[in-house]
Amino acid sequence: MSRDNHDNVIALLATFKHYGETATGGLTRLVYDAHWLQAQQAFIVQAKAYGLTCFIDPMGTVYATTPTRNADEPVILTGSHMDTVINGGGLDGQYGVLASLVAVGELLAQYGPPQKPLGVVAFSEEEGSRFPTTFSGSRWLTQQFNGQDNKLRDTQGVTFDAARQQAVAQLATLVPMRTTPIALAAYLELHIEQGNILNARGDELGLVTAIVGQRRLAITLTGVSNHAGTTPMIGRVDAVAQAVALMHELYQQLPKFDGLRYTIGQIMVSPNTANVIADAVQFSLDIRHEQQALLDEVTRFVMAQVAAGGGKACLTTDISATPLSSVLLEKAAQTAAQQHVRVHKMISGAGHDAQVIAQSGVPVALLFVPSDQGISHAPAEATADQQLIQGQAILQALLYQLGYQSS
Amino acid sequence: MSRDNHDNVIALLATFKHYGETATGGLTRLVYDAHWLQAQQAFIVQAKAYGLTCFIDPMGTVYATTPTRNADEPVILTGSHMDTVINGGGLDGQYGVLASLVAVGELLAQYGPPQKPLGVVAFSEEEGSRFPTTFSGSRWLTQQFNGQDNKLRDTQGVTFDAARQQAVAQLATLVPMRTTPIALAAYLELHIEQGNILNARGDELGLVTAIVGQRRLAITLTGVSNHAGTTPMIGRVDAVAQAVALMHELYQQLPKFDGLRYTIGQIMVSPNTANVIADAVQFSLDIRHEQQALLDEVTRFVMAQVAAGGGKACLTTDISATPLSSVLLEKAAQTAAQQHVRVHKMISGAGHDAQVIAQSGVPVALLFVPSDQGISHAPAEATADQQLIQGQAILQALLYQLGYQSS
Repeated sequence: MSRDNHDNVIALLATFKHYGETATGGLTRLVYDAHWLQAQQAFIVQAKAYGLTCFIDPMGTVYATTPTRNADEPVILTGSHMDTVINGGGLDGQYGVLASLVAVGELLAQYGPPQKPLGVVAFSEEEGSRFPTTFSGSRWLTQQFNGQDNKLRDTQGVTFDAARQQAVAQLATLVPMRTTPIALAAYLELHIEQGNILNARGDELGLVTAIVGQRRLAITLTGVSNHAGTTPMIGRVDAVAQAVALMHELYQQLPKFDGLRYTIGQIMVSPNTANVIADAVQFSLDIRHEQQALLDEVTRFVMAQVAAGGGKACLTTDISATPLSSVLLEKAAQTAAQQHVRVHKMISGAGHDAQVIAQSGVPVALLFVPSDQGISHAPAEATADQQLIQGQAILQALLYQLGYQSS
Repeated sequence: MSRDNHDNVIALLATFKHYGETATGGLTRLVYDAHWLQAQQAFIVQAKAYGLTCFIDPMGTVYATTPTRNADEPVILTGSHMDTVINGGGLDGQYGVLASLVAVGELLAQYGPPQKPLGVVAFSEEEGSRFPTTFSGSRWLTQQFNGQDNKLRDTQGVTFDAARQQAVAQLATLVPMRTTPIALAAYLELHIEQGNILNARGDELGLVTAIVGQRRLAITLTGVSNHAGTTPMIGRVDAVAQAVALMHELYQQLPKFDGLRYTIGQIMVSPNTANVIADAVQFSLDIRHEQQALLDEVTRFVMAQVAAGGGKACLTTDISATPLSSVLLEKAAQTAAQQHVRVHKMISGAGHDAQVIAQSGVPVALLFVPSDQGISHAPAEATADQQLIQGQAILQALLYQLGYQSS
């Protein structure tokens, strides 16, 4: 292997881009499909070339570890997921996997086996783009995977279980299977920022203090459908008028909650006809905050507003706010400072495998490199090579500190 | 024929209900279809039995007239349309046709030929439920029919022209064709109210002073689509937030315009996903008023509000307000008073053939009988027999006055 890791992560990204590249320059690599299998196989080949020990778990997640004194020793794990959204970009998930591979591979090559085992992970699935489930890879590792997921079907009617078994059988011809989750000492994830905060600030590295909690409500107003021309204004029960009044009130009140992100992204009107008074409107409200207590307070406030506005609210998504490890964050900040990298401590508004693992009690760090214009999940997703390399270098230095400099 | 017209209109309605009755008790009789043809043929048979002279025009509209001194003498025409919406009710259009037939037939039987010719009309089409055009029957009669309509296709790909020619050829085997529109002295239309004003007031007859003008606008707001979790609140360009602000402002301001009916019935959000900030919202605004000047003023006001709110407005429907004949209205009021019928002078918020004919300069009266709960265009459409009979009796008395009592 070349020791010039500044070339390696960029070259590896270019190679792996082939496994599922789309006509529009995007990447479609759905869990357990042929391109996903190619990518996991290529990851194994590359990891073995670095001298790492590879194995899989029953989900098809691939692990590549440095030598360890015993198989049960907790691993300092670094990585991300190998699947993509449909026609996504070439960095989401893949960058974290390949930067981690280069970082651990280079450390092993330069310094030999670490004092504490390091491992690279290529999670099987995070995006939920083939089956209606997300984070199945990291959920399996942290024993949060529910057997119910096996019954889920893709749009072709193939079950999660059938697709999984077929793909995993292929990987099992290359590497051994480990059916009990490995113990984790820590988990590090490097990701492009899905947003435009770092670029806008001119910062080079995001240090995530917490991943937001997320609640999503479906709010319904009920009216009485009638003729728009013949029905007098007095006595109308117009679901659109009710919904607009309620949405307006929410837009007036929600800015009071400091740091809250709130979005009405979906409105469905029935019958949705220009000359008919609506009998129902359902709209979504997505609220996110890093403090669970504030999220609870906002939820209670919204529920009261909805009731006062004559509506009904149903909680459809409820993900807890997840603070990440302040110890790891401080180490990452020191590492960045040593390398004269401008950092910004920030909240992640999007979910990541890091969130699932942190919820299981493992110390977790999540690092962001800037993303051009904040574009994510699209072929135009891009980050400058220099920033991709710098992110990998900081991750590598942090892993050196954790794995080689016993505290 | 029985002289007991109190039975006749109810019995005729029951008979004609068979021509297109649906499984849910509704009525589907689309212009030029088999049920429409049955109904027009049955109308001809019934009219001939009353001793009326029948003919058709090139649209398949059927006319049944009393004897007249010359063929070009202006006719006092009464009637409505024979087509229905899909799974509509048994009264809309049909009641006006059959009540007119009974009224004119009974007058002829009781009093012989009138001084001024009376005619019953069963217009071919008013609802626009088969082809994307409305009022084609009354538009042809008033020379407002555009040859472009002939090219329109139904959902099966059949052109208006082909369907028309085939159906009209069938009717032409029964009655002569008149290819020039007859001259009109007046037009009277009896209809169930499409709304619930009369029932709510406890009135028995609606005298329509004007049919509202109607404008429909499609209003568009444009945003920038982005991730609901990662995009800071500051700097968002959220089309839903813009649209809600504008809709709220319209709901606040529009009540200032006395007598205006305004409805937002349709909202379309793009991409309409709970966790994505919307890049576009389009909503409809339907406004109706009987005074064209006020409708013009409101349109200017809304356009200015939309521009101030950062949106764009497109006028998609524009139908002029139509005052009806105050002379005929007064005669109808006197007739009702003689029969001790409680009347209410009112605006029609829905369009009718009466509106098309009034716009051509002919004196027009439109009379409403109450409609249970204001239901219209649905199988549950209903009016008490007694009210249907009373409506026909008043129409008959009014026709007697106009046709037999020369002023």
